[in-house]
Amino acid sequence: MIIVFKKGASQKEVNNLIKKINSLGLKAMISKGIERTIVGVIGPEDVVRLQPLEVFPGVERVMTVLKPYKLASREFKNEDSIVKIRKGVEIGGKKVGVIAGPCSIESRKQLRMVAEKVKKAGAIILRGGAFKPRTSPYTFQGLGEEGLKILKDVSQEFDIPTATEVMDTRDVGLTAKYADILQVGARNMQNFNLLKEVGQIKKPVILKRGLNATIKELLMSAEYILSEGNFNVILCERGIRTFEDFTRNTLDLSAICAVKVLSHLPIIVDPSHACGKWGMVAPLSKAAVAAGADGLLIEVHPNPQEALSDGPQQLLPENFAFLMKELKKIAQVVGKNM
Amino acid sequence: MIIVFKKGASQKEVNNLIKKINSLGLKAMISKGIERTIVGVIGPEDVVRLQPLEVFPGVERVMTVLKPYKLASREFKNEDSIVKIRKGVEIGGKKVGVIAGPCSIESRKQLRMVAEKVKKAGAIILRGGAFKPRTSPYTFQGLGEEGLKILKDVSQEFDIPTATEVMDTRDVGLTAKYADILQVGARNMQNFNLLKEVGQIKKPVILKRGLNATIKELLMSAEYILSEGNFNVILCERGIRTFEDFTRNTLDLSAICAVKVLSHLPIIVDPSHACGKWGMVAPLSKAAVAAGADGLLIEVHPNPQEALSDGPQQLLPENFAFLMKELKKIAQVVGKNM
Amino acid sequence: MIIVFKKGASQKEVNNLIKKINSLGLKAMISKGIERTIVGVIGPEDVVRLQPLEVFPGVERVMTVLKPYKLASREFKNEDSIVKIRKGVEIGGKKVGVIAGPCSIESRKQLRMVAEKVKKAGAIILRGGAFKPRTSPYTFQGLGEEGLKILKDVSQEFDIPTATEVMDTRDVGLTAKYADILQVGARNMQNFNLLKEVGQIKKPVILKRGLNATIKELLMSAEYILSEGNFNVILCERGIRTFEDFTRNTLDLSAICAVKVLSHLPIIVDPSHACGKWGMVAPLSKAAVAAGADGLLIEVHPNPQEALSDGPQQLLPENFAFLMKELKKIAQVVGKNM
Amino acid sequence: MIIVFKKGASQKEVNNLIKKINSLGLKAMISKGIERTIVGVIGPEDVVRLQPLEVFPGVERVMTVLKPYKLASREFKNEDSIVKIRKGVEIGGKKVGVIAGPCSIESRKQLRMVAEKVKKAGAIILRGGAFKPRTSPYTFQGLGEEGLKILKDVSQEFDIPTATEVMDTRDVGLTAKYADILQVGARNMQNFNLLKEVGQIKKPVILKRGLNATIKELLMSAEYILSEGNFNVILCERGIRTFEDFTRNTLDLSAICAVKVLSHLPIIVDPSHACGKWGMVAPLSKAAVAAGADGLLIEVHPNPQEALSDGPQQLLPENFAFLMKELKKIAQVVGKNM
Repeated sequence: MIIVFKKGASQKEVNNLIKKINSLGLKAMISKGIERTIVGVIGPEDVVRLQPLEVFPGVERVMTVLKPYKLASREFKNEDSIVKIRKGVEIGGKKVGVIAGPCSIESRKQLRMVAEKVKKAGAIILRGGAFKPRTSPYTFQGLGEEGLKILKDVSQEFDIPTATEVMDTRDVGLTAKYADILQVGARNMQNFNLLKEVGQIKKPVILKRGLNATIKELLMSAEYILSEGNFNVILCERGIRTFEDFTRNTLDLSAICAVKVLSHLPIIVDPSHACGKWGMVAPLSKAAVAAGADGLLIEVHPNPQEALSDGPQQLLPENFAFLMKELKKIAQVVGKNM
Repeated sequence: MIIVFKKGASQKEVNNLIKKINSLGLKAMISKGIERTIVGVIGPEDVVRLQPLEVFPGVERVMTVLKPYKLASREFKNEDSIVKIRKGVEIGGKKVGVIAGPCSIESRKQLRMVAEKVKKAGAIILRGGAFKPRTSPYTFQGLGEEGLKILKDVSQEFDIPTATEVMDTRDVGLTAKYADILQVGARNMQNFNLLKEVGQIKKPVILKRGLNATIKELLMSAEYILSEGNFNVILCERGIRTFEDFTRNTLDLSAICAVKVLSHLPIIVDPSHACGKWGMVAPLSKAAVAAGADGLLIEVHPNPQEALSDGPQQLLPENFAFLMKELKKIAQVVGKNM
Repeated sequence: MIIVFKKGASQKEVNNLIKKINSLGLKAMISKGIERTIVGVIGPEDVVRLQPLEVFPGVERVMTVLKPYKLASREFKNEDSIVKIRKGVEIGGKKVGVIAGPCSIESRKQLRMVAEKVKKAGAIILRGGAFKPRTSPYTFQGLGEEGLKILKDVSQEFDIPTATEVMDTRDVGLTAKYADILQVGARNMQNFNLLKEVGQIKKPVILKRGLNATIKELLMSAEYILSEGNFNVILCERGIRTFEDFTRNTLDLSAICAVKVLSHLPIIVDPSHACGKWGMVAPLSKAAVAAGADGLLIEVHPNPQEALSDGPQQLLPENFAFLMKELKKIAQVVGKNM
Repeated sequence: MIIVFKKGASQKEVNNLIKKINSLGLKAMISKGIERTIVGVIGPEDVVRLQPLEVFPGVERVMTVLKPYKLASREFKNEDSIVKIRKGVEIGGKKVGVIAGPCSIESRKQLRMVAEKVKKAGAIILRGGAFKPRTSPYTFQGLGEEGLKILKDVSQEFDIPTATEVMDTRDVGLTAKYADILQVGARNMQNFNLLKEVGQIKKPVILKRGLNATIKELLMSAEYILSEGNFNVILCERGIRTFEDFTRNTLDLSAICAVKVLSHLPIIVDPSHACGKWGMVAPLSKAAVAAGADGLLIEVHPNPQEALSDGPQQLLPENFAFLMKELKKIAQVVGKNM
């Protein structure tokens, strides 16, 4: 940690801060420049990070040197993490894994139809929402436990593992009974109690980046899960909120590169939610794989015109199958396979 | 709802959509312009809103006419709502109500000291956090129920009602036992299960605007609470996230004016979290009152240098007392009192 | 144009507006719904667009139906535009065209070295800045006309056309004498006089999207150039400003898809400025081509450690050559070639 | 400047950078922490700022300590600057100065009517645009020199100084002949050639903050003008672009507080452009004065329904006069006068 003093800060003010630093068991290193005094703090940065040093008289700015997350950092673990879903199914490493399925589970018939088709096209995990976070209290809120049961049955019938969103700390245990992967949605990225709760189960977790979350904050939220002992975390970029309003959100593909620098965790991309328009899902999926994504989360619906949620962004199964073929070729160019 | 067709959309495509609209029990009104065909849908807009009409062939754009929230709207209730906290204490109407206290409840001694001073200075409600949403799992997470007990005791000793944050659906009942007002934090503004839960208790709720939430979304979240039967909702502007990085967030005071146009609910402002710097709290508080805020939420700490959370943004009790005097004068200029 | 009246707007207010509309030579179509009166305006929308109809009593909202740009729109010209630079060199269509070179022209030696290598690697246009927009008045501002002369000489020596930025209306003629393509930078995207000026020359123009510009605004700025008679406009996505601070800007690759829907103009991507880190240039370039970009603008410098501007984002010639090989393969997958 | 090395950076990498620093005539101060090596650079920071040190092997991050602007900084000049417009008319200091007038000069009659009324209500400067930056090439572009002549005539008739926007380097001399203050609009905040040009005349300049500009960048742009010798710069906050779409832009009143900390230059607020709705102009004007603004820029039009530009945001003269009375009272509360 580096503390920059205001021009003209008094020696007494500097001494006052150094006393504080020493009282925390840390060492201060003073550097008097032409214009400013700068104090470097040597020792575990966490101890100082909690102290409101900006409040001390004479201090202009406090700059942290170390990252506030540890277990999620590339420095903690240098090689890429691979999250094992079940035998033969994993996210991370040399394979690009595609997760596909409808936004909401609407009926057994609907999910069976999608499951069969996406598996055939090469998807390795089936997605489907039973608990739906909806901005309006008057819209379809998901089938709840009934939906989870359908998900489990269809999973067994077609021998494909599943991912589904959990929104409430009270539902974590229940959801973990039925699904293979728990998803924490963008709106819950900083629902810290939910993060702790999914940290205590042993199932893999997809953690979606919040609409206004920096990559650093995404990694801090992952840290919550990791610090509870669950290292099976898959990060997911799904678009951030900007002033642009033609697309629903702005997909930030540079987040893939950033995560690869900063962390060992795998990162997948959800182009469906990011753009909100099915016509953009294919080009953005290809771009994500080209940029180095470890996987994709794609919404597929047998009849988007009748979908109970997010119709405009869901692909038809045949479009999905066609896209998968192109994705395989892109994966090869960047040294991966599907 | 207005549906705009693409230039050159076929009559068959238009008819196809009209059939769908009629099948929902609604009336379509067709208008053929020089360049486009436009279809207006007459009837309850909610029915159509749920349908993914953008997916229909030939459709370019769907524009909604009505607001997606009802109970929170100015049209539902024309006169300003006043939220009663207890006899003689209310938010909304002609009085500007100030809520003050430390970011976190750290000890009985700390809270008593603050309570005494903020009450004397004119605050009508005491705030203090027992459950703290922290971005790092390694920082102080609040005293929990022990904190709530302290809050209740201090409330009774100094005869001042209290507000405290609730973060987890499982804690709503417990928190409501101890505090007079429940606060839903910015990070939980779209934690829909939490909104439903605080909608089912009868205590007033402070609903903070999310860091990336539009005013429309804030009102949609209020609608969740209202639709469960709890009309005692106080909105709170606390800064939004922008590219500007000198301040922690950008306080959006035009949100006050917008809420006054769109809704009957009272709106207060939290300048402490918005700017993250105590030196800005006073000018922004005055600005908020001048812009028509119904109240303020201000952090006050007896010793910010030792605060366990958010030290840099907390006011000293003496600065708070001085500010209160100025706020009273501003309130008078805009036709209110404190 | 659709005008939505407030709930409870009086008949007199509606009549007042209709009178105004008729006075402009347009037809009004009234639709009385259950909750609102809506008036559709039939006739050339431009005429109404200029009128401040929101100000009329009783009006709640005015919604435009048509796009505010014409010549830039896909509706004006359905097939993709191809911008011809010189015989055999063009941007748009089936070929992905790469423009490469240093951020600033620093010396003849530097530019010759880069020109030779990027041409050999497959770049079809050489870039290099002579006028540099720098945020600080104290940093290197470019070589000016001397730089342009070097650019022209090197262009002839290596038989490669050139692109360079023009920042001032007074420099347009001069710059056009030396370079083949004029570039309008992100900070000048809404320098309307500069747009008019480059609209009056006949050379191709690269128009960069402003850091806070919507795609609609980018197309409006293109419209300025087109409306002066110059149709040789190449759009360029170079990152927008968001709250994320790990990358310099956030590259918005969905802008490629959006432009392809809305306009016939070609769009290229500048990954160097967007991310500000050379390590991200390769993955984002591949992503851009996968998403359908018509070309790339890549900064290449023989010795980034000594660059006079933007050192951290410039590729070494050997890295650039390696990247070009991979880009060719991606281009093939998406049905293009390089 | 502080250079943070990557964990595990080699001694050779550190030495390599130190050699570079020494070659620039600067001193390096090395600090080896438990996890990282940090190097502080002592000497004029400008010299290093221009060097792309992030590119050196082993370097993780470069953190600057000093501000990149000098003449605009509070450290350069501690007391508040007061910009003199003419005898008895100034911006800055204890007086809140209001600049008012129509968005565009439309006719002599219109400007005379407004000038008379705003002067009577207490405005000290008349504004009116002759060159209008319009997003569409097809809308009213201003009266040009004819408008400037009207402005000058009306200024003399009513004995009130004037402010008008200049958009093109070629128009600076012409505009300075007719107007007392030159305004650089938000879209031209980083039109560096225009900044240099207005820096070379001696008339006061209003510099508007760009829609996506940080406060630091606003001050950097001011530095351009100051560094040419013109110290009569008035900063202007006029709203920034965020995701919120109810208001046209988000007025950032904390910018006032930030500028007061970082700079000696006066700052005024333009609430009309920020919100785009006349009903919000009054509350936001009061808020701006309460937050410490040195002045306001308010659009007033005799008949907003017929305005040729920005009708919805212009106040009627009688509303303006009423607002001025309230502003005087707010000014008094915060220790100023009007």
